[in-house]
Amino acid sequence: MKWDNIQEFPCSVARALSIVGDRWTLLILRDSFMGTKRFDKFQKQIGLSRHRLTDRLNKLVEHEILRKTPYQEKPVRYEYKLTRKGVELYPVLMTLAKWGDKWMDGGDGPPMEYLHTQCKHKMSVDICCSECGETINPKEVIPQFGPGLKAYSERVKALKS
Amino acid sequence: MKWDNIQEFPCSVARALSIVGDRWTLLILRDSFMGTKRFDKFQKQIGLSRHRLTDRLNKLVEHEILRKTPYQEKPVRYEYKLTRKGVELYPVLMTLAKWGDKWMDGGDGPPMEYLHTQCKHKMSVDICCSECGETINPKEVIPQFGPGLKAYSERVKALKS
Repeated sequence: MKWDNIQEFPCSVARALSIVGDRWTLLILRDSFMGTKRFDKFQKQIGLSRHRLTDRLNKLVEHEILRKTPYQEKPVRYEYKLTRKGVELYPVLMTLAKWGDKWMDGGDGPPMEYLHTQCKHKMSVDICCSECGETINPKEVIPQFGPGLKAYSERVKALKS
Repeated sequence: MKWDNIQEFPCSVARALSIVGDRWTLLILRDSFMGTKRFDKFQKQIGLSRHRLTDRLNKLVEHEILRKTPYQEKPVRYEYKLTRKGVELYPVLMTLAKWGDKWMDGGDGPPMEYLHTQCKHKMSVDICCSECGETINPKEVIPQFGPGLKAYSERVKALKS
């Protein structure tokens, strides 16, 4: 499997990783969720070279995860804001953070805590069933082939015949 | 920032990514959750070279995300099973899958679907508040400095003085 053609592969995890499966990219998105918008601030916080940061930001813009808009005219300067598609990566970042908080805090407790304004408690995220709302236990979830796999198999068959 | 010392950095997302922020690693974990345990099967499914796959599996064993146990004596052969720490990465994989299903299905629908045995519905995962159980809207979550950041700042200050 090559990453260049992974978007063709019938797996949503692999497809998602073909865009965001790079740790620098995920750190950029983390900073976006914390409110960072400008190139220099991303660079200062992440410590990535200008070249590599440009590369990652361009890819995120190309895939419509960040939107690049000018905030200044002379000289022109841009800022990067999360699109709807980008905002929907929030659960990925929050579940990574929760795992890091639990397994990699070095005994110090979490570096960041999260206040839920609706219930006023410090919270972490659980994953819940979209249908019944119950917290998910991995043992209670059965993966099944979906329509995307059928369509893929038929395309492969057509190519071979 | 270098990945070699990122575990020292006071950010749970960065710390988590220092271990699982590699797309091959996340694909290995995806296959673990689908029941794959043996080297040859991982290799067949992911298409990674033996050298690279060994490297990733060893790292996951070293960090106690997978446990390596012999399943055969002569010649000795091993299988790799998720530990508790590994199982708790399930939300990361499921939120990635959901995002890929929505934004990268190419119009074919999801390659895999998930049946929740508790409510008998096809489901996807939402993230919910650990305290009140409500579905999370990113705008309703306020990040705040936690004890891990304070401890880190104090260590840095002590090193400088």
